[in-house]
Amino acid sequence: MKPLQQPVIGILGGGQLARMMALAGYPLGMRFLFFDPDPQACAGQVGPLITAGYDDTKALDEFMREVDVVTFDFENVPVSTVRYVQQRRAVYPDPSVLEISQDRLLEKRFFQKLGLPVGQFFPVNSYSELAFGAKSYEFDALLKTRRMGYDGKGQFRITPGADLKSIWEQARGRKLVLEQRVPFEREISVITVRDADGQLSQYAVTENKHNNGVLATSTAPARYTDSCQLAKTHARTIAEALEYVGVLVIEFFETPDGVLINEMAPRVHNSGHWTIEGALTSQFENHLRAVCGWPLGSTDSWGYAAMLNWIGSVPNIACMPKQAHIHHHLYGKTPRAGRKVGHTTITAEDPANLQRKVVNFAKQLSDSLGKL
Amino acid sequence: MKPLQQPVIGILGGGQLARMMALAGYPLGMRFLFFDPDPQACAGQVGPLITAGYDDTKALDEFMREVDVVTFDFENVPVSTVRYVQQRRAVYPDPSVLEISQDRLLEKRFFQKLGLPVGQFFPVNSYSELAFGAKSYEFDALLKTRRMGYDGKGQFRITPGADLKSIWEQARGRKLVLEQRVPFEREISVITVRDADGQLSQYAVTENKHNNGVLATSTAPARYTDSCQLAKTHARTIAEALEYVGVLVIEFFETPDGVLINEMAPRVHNSGHWTIEGALTSQFENHLRAVCGWPLGSTDSWGYAAMLNWIGSVPNIACMPKQAHIHHHLYGKTPRAGRKVGHTTITAEDPANLQRKVVNFAKQLSDSLGKL
Repeated sequence: MKPLQQPVIGILGGGQLARMMALAGYPLGMRFLFFDPDPQACAGQVGPLITAGYDDTKALDEFMREVDVVTFDFENVPVSTVRYVQQRRAVYPDPSVLEISQDRLLEKRFFQKLGLPVGQFFPVNSYSELAFGAKSYEFDALLKTRRMGYDGKGQFRITPGADLKSIWEQARGRKLVLEQRVPFEREISVITVRDADGQLSQYAVTENKHNNGVLATSTAPARYTDSCQLAKTHARTIAEALEYVGVLVIEFFETPDGVLINEMAPRVHNSGHWTIEGALTSQFENHLRAVCGWPLGSTDSWGYAAMLNWIGSVPNIACMPKQAHIHHHLYGKTPRAGRKVGHTTITAEDPANLQRKVVNFAKQLSDSLGKL
Repeated sequence: MKPLQQPVIGILGGGQLARMMALAGYPLGMRFLFFDPDPQACAGQVGPLITAGYDDTKALDEFMREVDVVTFDFENVPVSTVRYVQQRRAVYPDPSVLEISQDRLLEKRFFQKLGLPVGQFFPVNSYSELAFGAKSYEFDALLKTRRMGYDGKGQFRITPGADLKSIWEQARGRKLVLEQRVPFEREISVITVRDADGQLSQYAVTENKHNNGVLATSTAPARYTDSCQLAKTHARTIAEALEYVGVLVIEFFETPDGVLINEMAPRVHNSGHWTIEGALTSQFENHLRAVCGWPLGSTDSWGYAAMLNWIGSVPNIACMPKQAHIHHHLYGKTPRAGRKVGHTTITAEDPANLQRKVVNFAKQLSDSLGKL
């Protein structure tokens, strides 16, 4: 692929991922145009935004006229939209990956076809299937909508005491899949970037902690286990099978018996935010490099990094003394319960110092809250 | 001064300095609005831009309505404009500094009044004054316009063979000052940041090389001499005398007899671009912190840095492999002879490695040019 010179990059979706892509691309002379149905989309603060529905072909035509290449910051952009854009502009990664990743069932079957390990699951189309499945998974399972699920949305926990009837009433009408709960020891993710010529590079494996289905913290490099190498190999298999171009993130469960794939995100990902300060090239810059046909940058780590998500509210950084190894990123979004509104990355030379800095920062935060 | 929470910052002037301020402020949740008479102003690629003349009070009213605080990226914004804005919004630094810095003669007299060393100069209002001055400075001088001079614009070199009549014909009609040329050993600059409460911090002294009056390279920390300490003290005296808020840059000539002040820039400055990667807090972030009443960040250096300006054209970075210690910054401007269109900063742990990396980079550049 011939490198695009001073490209204008169109991004479908204008959230914080689009915003951070733009901030990574501007110093490289790249320009951006965002497309989002929401006029408040936070990327619109840092570049031009077209506000229109994803089915508005007139607006999409305008969008295409202005850009050299297209990518997305949201895996639930309708495939029909991306296919329409692809008639006139190169789109990376290819929309075919969206067809898979937008449907949990197709996604799991895709991993199985590649011979990769996934947890037990089966599709649920009726109450009796739900009841049967719940029983066969010993009432330790998750009922998930096949489509439009992210950040723990569209999930129902099945426990021995759960009211299956009530869950069914809430969930019915949507395509569903029941997943046996995996008794995992750790959640890890692998951030892979692949360019159009097949060059592939992977960041240090990241360890993730979730609260209520929403990512709370990521640390990298994760404590090394055999599973880390296995996870990287699986991620490579997936990226190559898809002939993927851009950043692809695969989430895994680490269990006593090895790793199971949880899901994939065909885009830059929250668990890769630490790469802004913690890696030689951020996931955002490398995604843009891949999409524009530029040579990739090194994915090596500088040291150790911990990323903390701000959900629902942000700390009052205007009053905090700046510390050299603490990097705040606010997204300019209106705070709202459950909403990702920013993150902070703490960097250190080794895991012990990282731990110490995280504890100090937490203490400082609670002190400053006490003063408010 | 009470810290502004998630402020909207208005910037008069929308060039690369405004652009880099915005890129520094976005991760902190700051928002920006640029004001520039040029619809192509390059900051407009990274945020909203009002295009109007500096005397367009209706447009200025609109600008003021949208912002919490105002600063500028260009010292030749008309003082009347900034005074008008100041009636309704806080402006930092105070416009009084523009009145001084916009006139070379007032500026030099201001430094003299503070007891600080400047080179020989005198105002020129007629051909006979020019002829007299040229002779008394032994035909080794510079005739400069008092106003609107930057990047070597509005300067005439006086040498023994110079055609004074012709120079006078070109220069007359403007207010002029004749400066004896200083036989300097080095040009250095001091980047000072001061907040509204009087806290003041200074970056490592920077060594600058110019080509045809335009900054070509800056390296920092400069090789240490007694002059460096003296320059820092003078810069502090100036910032405190002005009760300055924001980043203030003072350029000095280092001579065998000590330092002489060349000029000041009441804004972030090209010789401070190395601070983006070379210091714990960039000049852009610290300027914003001062302007918004936030605590300043450390001005300590990470190591050694060299900044190379791209003037007239930029290297083809789309084809270059990314290197971890080489940081490109393109401004999105249309290349034109003599125009600053980008810069590259190279960082290293020590001066010897820095030198080696700069040489390698230059070789790589000339190789890539050979391939075009």
